[in-house]
Amino acid sequence: MTTARARLRELGITIGRYPTGPVNAITDVPGVLVGHKTIIRDAPNVVRTGVTVVVPREGRIHEDYPFAGFFSFNGIGEMTGVPLIDEWGVLTSPVVLTNTSQVGTARDALVEYGTRAYGDFAFKLPVVAETYDGFLSDSDAFAITREDVIEAVECAASGPVAEGSVGGGTGMICHEFKGGIGTASRLVKSAGHTYTLGALVQANHGIRSLLRVDGVPVGQYIDSERVPLPSSTGDRHPLSAPIEASSILIILATDAPLVPLQCKRLARRATLGMARAGGVGHNTSGDLFLAFATGNHYHEHGKEIWNIQMLPNSAMDPFFEASAEVVEEAILNALTCAETVTGLHGRTAYALPLDDLVEIYQRFNRVKSSEAPE
Amino acid sequence: MTTARARLRELGITIGRYPTGPVNAITDVPGVLVGHKTIIRDAPNVVRTGVTVVVPREGRIHEDYPFAGFFSFNGIGEMTGVPLIDEWGVLTSPVVLTNTSQVGTARDALVEYGTRAYGDFAFKLPVVAETYDGFLSDSDAFAITREDVIEAVECAASGPVAEGSVGGGTGMICHEFKGGIGTASRLVKSAGHTYTLGALVQANHGIRSLLRVDGVPVGQYIDSERVPLPSSTGDRHPLSAPIEASSILIILATDAPLVPLQCKRLARRATLGMARAGGVGHNTSGDLFLAFATGNHYHEHGKEIWNIQMLPNSAMDPFFEASAEVVEEAILNALTCAETVTGLHGRTAYALPLDDLVEIYQRFNRVKSSEAPE
Amino acid sequence: MTTARARLRELGITIGRYPTGPVNAITDVPGVLVGHKTIIRDAPNVVRTGVTVVVPREGRIHEDYPFAGFFSFNGIGEMTGVPLIDEWGVLTSPVVLTNTSQVGTARDALVEYGTRAYGDFAFKLPVVAETYDGFLSDSDAFAITREDVIEAVECAASGPVAEGSVGGGTGMICHEFKGGIGTASRLVKSAGHTYTLGALVQANHGIRSLLRVDGVPVGQYIDSERVPLPSSTGDRHPLSAPIEASSILIILATDAPLVPLQCKRLARRATLGMARAGGVGHNTSGDLFLAFATGNHYHEHGKEIWNIQMLPNSAMDPFFEASAEVVEEAILNALTCAETVTGLHGRTAYALPLDDLVEIYQRFNRVKSSEAPE
Amino acid sequence: MTTARARLRELGITIGRYPTGPVNAITDVPGVLVGHKTIIRDAPNVVRTGVTVVVPREGRIHEDYPFAGFFSFNGIGEMTGVPLIDEWGVLTSPVVLTNTSQVGTARDALVEYGTRAYGDFAFKLPVVAETYDGFLSDSDAFAITREDVIEAVECAASGPVAEGSVGGGTGMICHEFKGGIGTASRLVKSAGHTYTLGALVQANHGIRSLLRVDGVPVGQYIDSERVPLPSSTGDRHPLSAPIEASSILIILATDAPLVPLQCKRLARRATLGMARAGGVGHNTSGDLFLAFATGNHYHEHGKEIWNIQMLPNSAMDPFFEASAEVVEEAILNALTCAETVTGLHGRTAYALPLDDLVEIYQRFNRVKSSEAPE
Repeated sequence: MTTARARLRELGITIGRYPTGPVNAITDVPGVLVGHKTIIRDAPNVVRTGVTVVVPREGRIHEDYPFAGFFSFNGIGEMTGVPLIDEWGVLTSPVVLTNTSQVGTARDALVEYGTRAYGDFAFKLPVVAETYDGFLSDSDAFAITREDVIEAVECAASGPVAEGSVGGGTGMICHEFKGGIGTASRLVKSAGHTYTLGALVQANHGIRSLLRVDGVPVGQYIDSERVPLPSSTGDRHPLSAPIEASSILIILATDAPLVPLQCKRLARRATLGMARAGGVGHNTSGDLFLAFATGNHYHEHGKEIWNIQMLPNSAMDPFFEASAEVVEEAILNALTCAETVTGLHGRTAYALPLDDLVEIYQRFNRVKSSEAPE
Repeated sequence: MTTARARLRELGITIGRYPTGPVNAITDVPGVLVGHKTIIRDAPNVVRTGVTVVVPREGRIHEDYPFAGFFSFNGIGEMTGVPLIDEWGVLTSPVVLTNTSQVGTARDALVEYGTRAYGDFAFKLPVVAETYDGFLSDSDAFAITREDVIEAVECAASGPVAEGSVGGGTGMICHEFKGGIGTASRLVKSAGHTYTLGALVQANHGIRSLLRVDGVPVGQYIDSERVPLPSSTGDRHPLSAPIEASSILIILATDAPLVPLQCKRLARRATLGMARAGGVGHNTSGDLFLAFATGNHYHEHGKEIWNIQMLPNSAMDPFFEASAEVVEEAILNALTCAETVTGLHGRTAYALPLDDLVEIYQRFNRVKSSEAPE
Repeated sequence: MTTARARLRELGITIGRYPTGPVNAITDVPGVLVGHKTIIRDAPNVVRTGVTVVVPREGRIHEDYPFAGFFSFNGIGEMTGVPLIDEWGVLTSPVVLTNTSQVGTARDALVEYGTRAYGDFAFKLPVVAETYDGFLSDSDAFAITREDVIEAVECAASGPVAEGSVGGGTGMICHEFKGGIGTASRLVKSAGHTYTLGALVQANHGIRSLLRVDGVPVGQYIDSERVPLPSSTGDRHPLSAPIEASSILIILATDAPLVPLQCKRLARRATLGMARAGGVGHNTSGDLFLAFATGNHYHEHGKEIWNIQMLPNSAMDPFFEASAEVVEEAILNALTCAETVTGLHGRTAYALPLDDLVEIYQRFNRVKSSEAPE
Repeated sequence: MTTARARLRELGITIGRYPTGPVNAITDVPGVLVGHKTIIRDAPNVVRTGVTVVVPREGRIHEDYPFAGFFSFNGIGEMTGVPLIDEWGVLTSPVVLTNTSQVGTARDALVEYGTRAYGDFAFKLPVVAETYDGFLSDSDAFAITREDVIEAVECAASGPVAEGSVGGGTGMICHEFKGGIGTASRLVKSAGHTYTLGALVQANHGIRSLLRVDGVPVGQYIDSERVPLPSSTGDRHPLSAPIEASSILIILATDAPLVPLQCKRLARRATLGMARAGGVGHNTSGDLFLAFATGNHYHEHGKEIWNIQMLPNSAMDPFFEASAEVVEEAILNALTCAETVTGLHGRTAYALPLDDLVEIYQRFNRVKSSEAPE
């Protein structure tokens, strides 16, 4: 069942009609970097965990805030820093994605790092979010150190992004296959410009029977005899949900000049891509979505009036349509890139079999090729 | 192109895996009634409009409030009474769906009717919502009278519900076909009981190219040469959007004993069914969702403590999954039931051709039949 | 008990430390006009009602939207148009304040007026809000006509604003004295400019024992033997609250260049002034607050990028402090300007006796005069 | 200037008209415990910090959730666990209040403690909140350990609560005097029962000139010559605000049977007491309010329907009025109990001088004694 993994498009499957950016990743948005720190070990604890960081502004976020907005589709998860985003509409720190038990470690690491690197008030209320990887990884191990977090920040880079069982996604499970980190991007023509819209997800949610790939109910055709379910051990998710109904974090980034309220509108649209792929926001899921826009530059320092730009709301539709596409594809990239992982207590989360995926998809393939809308 | 219309299931197309109630309509929820008043005339103005009313509690809603919750996926629409729903978590009046220009007429009609029928404080802050039918109907006509609204309330009945170009849906357009009113229901086993979940939509949103039916991109296969677009006249929606990107109202009802916050959770899930069918919440759309639950009885009168029941949150997942199904099917029923309508300035909104729908669906049909989950 | 009424400052009582604008009214904000239509008659029904309109942009609001934000401190009231404000962050119509039963009449009047005056899409989702005047006025009379509403819009003017029992405030009761319309303004130095912040309230809320004037518990010193309570008849507010615990609408306006999220922040601060004067958001109150900022110009038409200005958040504090002052003073102006009114069934709402107010205030007067902060 | 400190009532000053519980503290609510861990040292770093914990259910909160609601008046602060509270309306962990830099330490400590003490899924998404004490304490010291946090949880007790410069309040500054922890309670008769409403605040907000004590503008009468301001050193708060405009955390608890939405209503009312005492929600303040109600018992385990009680909304007014009182008094108790503290770089935050307070208050004392309303 172990095969070379691939991104969705490498399998001949395309989501939607907007063109992608150069590497089809959130890093196509100028200045957005991604870093991973993956932690895999079998002793003294079985650990399959890590940290993924999205760093805007090529690292100068401490002095150049993008506008931002937040939306919770289902709130049984954690994202720190949200009250500030709701109040000021800005992002003031890198965004860290990790496991449930160590949000605090990552948060204080950012506080300390910001202070040391940039002076007293950088990263005081940072954004750290989580999904739960306790099925595969011993959460009692508290394996992530502050240094791991800072390493992920400092190694963040532009260009292609590792996906699947990597960084914060190392131990994650999605639609009852092995999940993790996925990303995608779209080019959006609006208001006379071409902007980039990128998504990065840490996908740890959903049940198999609801999984769809571009509308094709792939999950229904790969039953537990074909590929065992991770929940077969009877383990339970924290707060009493089955393991298969956990969380998804979605980060949307664009270089368009959106104002804060428009970022919130965009964050809400992340729901669309999740829904198309079969997510329903199960009861114990933390479906927390963050959108930021780098098209304006802002900082709290100083008291001079800022001259900013604002995309007219009437030019938002291409972003809304593309956000559905880019999130769906990012989720599917997480699935197609993640390899089978065996971890805690010998439990295994199996990779989505790519041969099956392609076969099922081709059997029902019926999307007309189409040009991107202007 | 005019053919006998039918509900989606009559065409052999089934959405999802939960079973329907007896008539597959919101009226399957005990005590929920639906009434329509359709207004079609050509002189002195060309009018294609009306009123649809959802009446809970077999009309005793003035003295027996269901719990309720509201969600706005995109707010360029109107629903009166929302601040009360957000504050108290109850529904205190029938729910009226009508056109944009006459929300006020319908609202004051309910106020007056409540006072006359039930005494001074009934229906003082009623729920009236709208979508825009000015493409087919002369909104300057202000054709709806207070009497029309009351007639719709008083004729509300249980049992099968007329769908398509009827009542508030008379002049509506959905995914660039003729739209309007649609409804569906599901039976949900949860916490040891079988509950009913029903949806009723007034669908006036979406673009054709994004329309999907159970994942099949039907809209891509029926181009404007096959069936003309309603926007071909170049008319524009209020507030500058193209006509095809307007609004959808979704009402969810259940007899489960939900508390107000759980109704809000359910209302948010209406997004899922809209997304699966291809809605994206275009910029000028009023995508306003209301969920109410009749499983408890409550009123503001008196100061005694109420004994109520609460479904555990851990039993909500079947409702969340079923809400996606029931909304998708209600939207599609609006499309398959609505007939072609010609109205203002000779403009025509064409019905979704059922032969095409069935042919395209069967060509790509690939959903395994499945039993409802327990 | 009938004496010549006066504004609070004419009585020698000053709220806070920021200076007022020229006429100490919301009309000090450039371009903001106010119009009233007062309807008082005794046959065939006893009517004490009316309409007050706040018209931004000297009437050109149909083509030049201010940014706006909304906050509900307690939602048992109505304000139409709120979903649009939450979504786009703009105000697209005049703001109408009236009684509970005729929100619909006023709303549809604005829709019709907008269409006729400015073309098809003006004022399609207008803002109309209410408080309940059924203690003094026969709400069954439905006395307000569409023409009354339009008259109020068209007569709106800059300069001094009539206060107390006028327009929408004609039948209102505040802290168990006669209430109604009140207004005030402040000059705010921020970010190198001097801006104007204005408030207009329709005050129909609160109980007497909690009324405070600049911290002095005036309400405790004017008991029901000195001035009878309006609730002595035992009448009840809609939705079962005592008459004395009804609603307050607060409109804040400024010419500062705020973005939508900052308007929402400002709207939330209206709570402060209400709280200082003794309001608590009683259970049946509709405490609905709207803030708009005219410092930027925006419209949905066109798809070009807008160049706008944004006050830095770090320059918001003077606005927050001034908003508390301006709302407290507007509420108190409503009380000191309103005359005693006798209405339906011979019921009387008594004016706050100004001699008592001044005597009690002077007895406990202890605010140091101070300069406005820079 | 150093005198024996006292609670406000010991000085003869009473806030409002509702009676207090036995010890006038949040611990009057049955089952609510409070624990402090205070950390004061001068080497190797100057540390004035700590942790305060509110523990509901006598520690059995892992298996018996109270309902809860959250409100952010100004969001420039952190409270973890809020998405869960917004979604489920329950509190699932102790509530920890600490400094800004170590929210993460406290959070992960709770996660670890919950797992070890109660099994795998306790305290996975705990509530930890912060205000900033970097003026007096070296935030680079990261002085708080996981053990400190757990010690505070385990030492939590009923009965009188230490106030002022203790626990999480050790380094806090309020209205430019020394601030910190304060608490108060009220007995509320409603719906035929007597309930307890308690507040606990970590007060680190406000400017001196706006401080009011029961309406008396005490802050105006104690100028910086009489008592120096803490901001005289020119230090700045994180994110660019002056030190004097920082944050306040407010926890409200009651044994009444509120449902989640009613807890949210109550949390919003915390604004009233803060406003009466002179708070305005300055730009950089984290004014985050949490209310929980122990009158019902609930847990996510199991799928059986819960029988719960619900106070009618019409019985909420005494809670709303009392919440204003109890928060104002808790803030003032923080001020009157906190002693002068000298810390980092020799900076001093001076205690509110009680002699001055009493003298100023008596000079303007004018509140009639009154009975509590029924």
